Amino acid sequence: MPLLKKENQYSKANNMDKETLIQVHNNVKPYIHETPVLTSELINEICDCHVYFKCENFQKMGAFKMRGAINAIQNLTSKQKENGVVTHSSGNFAQAISLASKYLNIKAYIVMPENAPQVKKDAVLNYQGIIVECKSNIKAREIEAERIVKNENATFIHPSNDDQVILGQSTSAKELLEKQSDLDIILTPVGGGGLLAGTALSAKYFSSNCEVIGAEPENVDDAYRSLKSGKIEYNKNTSTIADGLRTNLGDRNFPIILENVKKIIRVSEEEIINAMKLVWERMKMVIEPSSAVPLAALLKEKQNFKNKKVGIIISGGNVDLTNLPF
Amino acid sequence: MPLLKKENQYSKANNMDKETLIQVHNNVKPYIHETPVLTSELINEICDCHVYFKCENFQKMGAFKMRGAINAIQNLTSKQKENGVVTHSSGNFAQAISLASKYLNIKAYIVMPENAPQVKKDAVLNYQGIIVECKSNIKAREIEAERIVKNENATFIHPSNDDQVILGQSTSAKELLEKQSDLDIILTPVGGGGLLAGTALSAKYFSSNCEVIGAEPENVDDAYRSLKSGKIEYNKNTSTIADGLRTNLGDRNFPIILENVKKIIRVSEEEIINAMKLVWERMKMVIEPSSAVPLAALLKEKQNFKNKKVGIIISGGNVDLTNLPF
Repeated sequence: MPLLKKENQYSKANNMDKETLIQVHNNVKPYIHETPVLTSELINEICDCHVYFKCENFQKMGAFKMRGAINAIQNLTSKQKENGVVTHSSGNFAQAISLASKYLNIKAYIVMPENAPQVKKDAVLNYQGIIVECKSNIKAREIEAERIVKNENATFIHPSNDDQVILGQSTSAKELLEKQSDLDIILTPVGGGGLLAGTALSAKYFSSNCEVIGAEPENVDDAYRSLKSGKIEYNKNTSTIADGLRTNLGDRNFPIILENVKKIIRVSEEEIINAMKLVWERMKMVIEPSSAVPLAALLKEKQNFKNKKVGIIISGGNVDLTNLPF
Repeated sequence: MPLLKKENQYSKANNMDKETLIQVHNNVKPYIHETPVLTSELINEICDCHVYFKCENFQKMGAFKMRGAINAIQNLTSKQKENGVVTHSSGNFAQAISLASKYLNIKAYIVMPENAPQVKKDAVLNYQGIIVECKSNIKAREIEAERIVKNENATFIHPSNDDQVILGQSTSAKELLEKQSDLDIILTPVGGGGLLAGTALSAKYFSSNCEVIGAEPENVDDAYRSLKSGKIEYNKNTSTIADGLRTNLGDRNFPIILENVKKIIRVSEEEIINAMKLVWERMKMVIEPSSAVPLAALLKEKQNFKNKKVGIIISGGNVDLTNLPF
């Protein structure tokens, strides 16, 4: 925060006050599930605290991303809606934008690398997204997305670095706090930063004293380093099983994170896989590797959470059942 | 029903009226989870009806069996409690009796075949059950259980053919109907018959007009044949992936089923696996093969369920993650 003020390199969004979050939640409600909050005695015993899992794996299209996608599209002008939206993603946001666009009856162009797995392409097609293929590198993706913006007058929506996406993602923690108002801590995974920023906003407005902590794979610890240095850091490689967390923070969500999040815990690949298996075996839930990162973080620093009430956002459940890490 | 009356070979329990079921539910409540009822738009679309999943895979020890085990033990005399209980099972009931006994602070002897998988033995030991090994055949199991009954004065509790177990199992459908009172149909798997009988009782007392249908693997269709012939039929082999459904009906639950259940639908092994995969992929839930049998039955006879409100009891989620059928 002091760093931010000194450097003044990122500007915060204007309309992210409490009233806005309440309005956003009301707007997205008709299009999302109010996902359940589940607990497990056995996991409480193992963790030596009380854990409340907010199950976005049960969300429409299987991940919290639906919340941000719906809100972003709802906030377009009529003219923008006419021309449709474009994003580049081969993961959950591609599905979220496709399904949200289907609900709101607009066109969604999804730029995907030509070598993306067929199962991911099928998911987008299933939700009536229009796939535009490109070479498998970030530059090619961006060029293709820009081309569509120009040629089709489509509006680009970033998966995490977009104010309306961040606001949409805030609704998950808001619901969690409505069900469990006395949480001491909420843990979320951090990849692009949209969920962490949104969660931090909800904790700020809808709890009295709830701390928000990020959890990140050691192999892609850009957010951890960014929080330390006060500026957005990048990953040299993206080799982690937590495929939803390979991306970087952006100038829209980083200021919020910098102001409201004091800590990011890093975990190893093995810790992620063990936490994932624990949830599958003991909670009988299908969660994707990225979703296991916060529980892995809690287990790693157990002593710091002792007897506390800890919310964990289970971010999603989209995983290839024929290729499990255990 | 006419057959039953004519043959008069099975006697019905006396105390299975509405008041008893309410009392049983109150008694078991402190020891069980009120499991959630989940829905999936996508599965509704595929099934062309409204499906309400009562998720006993989220129950303590991972299956509905906990309900019957708790109720059976609660109904023992003080003297019986002192001497402990015995059952023979290598599946969910072994875990249920172990955990229920742990809660109620009594001894539980679990007779298990010596070649039972270590993971199942560990689950029982984890809940402080006392494992007694025997040869791997039904006769050896029964002899060993009888020996413990004699030597330890322990009380034998059958996994499904026991009035108090049946009453305990009724509480799942009772909770389902409390959340969704307008169900047209409830589908449950049928193995030993405890869940189906208990569900039939709850539908009779706590719904206005809800039909109960059983679902069974073709390979072990003893309940289907029993309902046709009016007497308990047996399986020649027990080869099905639905390992919880290999057992036979008994003289305590069959009269209830005969009187209250009009139909049992049989499904193939492939249909079971497909339904199981559908729930894992689309509902993000870990369910065991036995739990997929009712959904497989619904999909098989889709036309008969069109636009109806159908409850499905997801019986459990205990499955070996390293040995999945897909």
